[in-house]
Amino acid sequence: MIFQSLSQLSEKIADLPEADMESTDKALKRDAVLTKPAGALGKLEEIAVWASAWQRQHPPTFEKPQIAIFAGNHGVCAKGVSAFPPEVTVQMVANFDSNGAAINQLANQYGASFSVWPLELNTPTADFTENPAMSEEEMLTAVNIGWKAVEAGSDFLVVGEMGIGNTTVASALAAALFGGTGADWAGPGTGVGPDGMGRKADAIDAGLKRHADILGDPLKVMQHLGGRELAAMLGAVLAARFKNVPVVLDGFVTCAAIAPLFKLNEKALDHCIVGHGSAEPGHMKLLQHLKQQPLLSLAMRLGEGSGAAVALGIVQSAIVTHAGMASFTEAGVSDQD
Amino acid sequence: MIFQSLSQLSEKIADLPEADMESTDKALKRDAVLTKPAGALGKLEEIAVWASAWQRQHPPTFEKPQIAIFAGNHGVCAKGVSAFPPEVTVQMVANFDSNGAAINQLANQYGASFSVWPLELNTPTADFTENPAMSEEEMLTAVNIGWKAVEAGSDFLVVGEMGIGNTTVASALAAALFGGTGADWAGPGTGVGPDGMGRKADAIDAGLKRHADILGDPLKVMQHLGGRELAAMLGAVLAARFKNVPVVLDGFVTCAAIAPLFKLNEKALDHCIVGHGSAEPGHMKLLQHLKQQPLLSLAMRLGEGSGAAVALGIVQSAIVTHAGMASFTEAGVSDQD
Repeated sequence: MIFQSLSQLSEKIADLPEADMESTDKALKRDAVLTKPAGALGKLEEIAVWASAWQRQHPPTFEKPQIAIFAGNHGVCAKGVSAFPPEVTVQMVANFDSNGAAINQLANQYGASFSVWPLELNTPTADFTENPAMSEEEMLTAVNIGWKAVEAGSDFLVVGEMGIGNTTVASALAAALFGGTGADWAGPGTGVGPDGMGRKADAIDAGLKRHADILGDPLKVMQHLGGRELAAMLGAVLAARFKNVPVVLDGFVTCAAIAPLFKLNEKALDHCIVGHGSAEPGHMKLLQHLKQQPLLSLAMRLGEGSGAAVALGIVQSAIVTHAGMASFTEAGVSDQD
Repeated sequence: MIFQSLSQLSEKIADLPEADMESTDKALKRDAVLTKPAGALGKLEEIAVWASAWQRQHPPTFEKPQIAIFAGNHGVCAKGVSAFPPEVTVQMVANFDSNGAAINQLANQYGASFSVWPLELNTPTADFTENPAMSEEEMLTAVNIGWKAVEAGSDFLVVGEMGIGNTTVASALAAALFGGTGADWAGPGTGVGPDGMGRKADAIDAGLKRHADILGDPLKVMQHLGGRELAAMLGAVLAARFKNVPVVLDGFVTCAAIAPLFKLNEKALDHCIVGHGSAEPGHMKLLQHLKQQPLLSLAMRLGEGSGAAVALGIVQSAIVTHAGMASFTEAGVSDQD
């Protein structure tokens, strides 16, 4: 798939595959006969059914999880919105490449395939307080990279990001899509103090004002206020729907990146669950709009897909219990009176 | 260690090893230089420090997790307190032995050593509404089995249980130790309806009345109202403290089993974290008394140590990130402005 226009992308988002009901039914039937009281594995049971539906197979598998990290730089950093200097983005990409970051350790833990996609790090997006962050072509290039990054045959996908300044970008997207001011959505990110939070809020408000005419179009919101790594995550999560790969979503930046999909089609995230609710305050607010609840709340706020990667363990637990447990009949265990 | 009297056990509980401050300090120092904003891994950072303290080593390891399951039968089942017949306990032990239960799949997921300890399943404890559940000797035998079950060299321990009727037993212990009536603590367990819940509450109230004279002595509470698998878990969690094995606690029955340790010594659970908050309503109430919060809330209510075993993934994530990440200096990443 190569998207050549926003309208082509918009058409794709409007016409998505539905869940596979045959695999769903098989999962529900198997769940009912496994050696446990009905419902006693709680959300693990729901995850096993959901994974069957979107992998379009039964039993579901956890053999080839994939983690794809996208990195971008942001013109709005000129407004002093981050606690870290922008060169950290490229330094952290090098850290990913040499296996030194948190997400590397988590990928190793779950035997996940791992890839990093640095997106024009020497050419930051434009400062959205003054100009559209990206041209339509720049945005589509990023979306297409995200689409292609998803390996058909992966059984789960985690997308993550690295981009100094991108919680400001995520806050701007959230405000543009769901309403509210910069102060409503800005948070500490990597750790700015009150002054930095004020600069973030001001930058977001300036961006919303500058691009007021396009706020009704979710894909143009991404183009004008977003960033390359966010557009790539949107492309990857969309691709996963077509490639039968259920997605475990990460924190605030990831969820803001895929929010335009939800605005265009409320069913567009049905193949996704949220792995971790971030300590970044905008995340839980955003999840209410997206009608999602996180599996975990561990006060993490790192990005890199790390919260979702930690949640892969729960997904794996759901799959291995569903696939591996004996039935009451197989085990010769008496069922409920 | 072989305990030959309750007073000997009580003395051991009063005199516990403290956390290793040298390993704690090393963990805190390393955490501060890893390539992430300070605190951005949230509870994972706390777990890594806690594990260093109680493994008494730095870096902490996740190489030999151990899962030990204890099974017992309960005379109080005669009062119609469970949705399943008592023969299910022995049937489920066979299921554990043939790798068919949920906990087997979870043990395999994390490469944990796995052992099952069936405790006199053909000789249920006495019905506590009429007599002490166990003699002092029966209880100490179970405590000693639990103590010996903990393998020195394990880096984490999960204890779990199987015993039809044991949520009634756990509720009786909780009420005896922390106050309240049967109705305050009884829950649906494996899935009894309102009538069964009423029978549970009545049995607990009868037990509290029958043994009113010993309710001030936490170990006698275990002897009179507890069960063999619960006493064994108490012994195992106590042993873990002396064998330098941090513990991930499971749900309501497990936490009720180790509550006498806390009543005797408020520091006795410092080497424990709670993996999962059960859907069984007594658990969260009990955790308030034990001053603990669970890592996970996945609406599980199976027992078998399964909630704690799912949480092993989070503990592993904490260990692998702490041990494997590069420092800012090693990675050449600029630290916060």
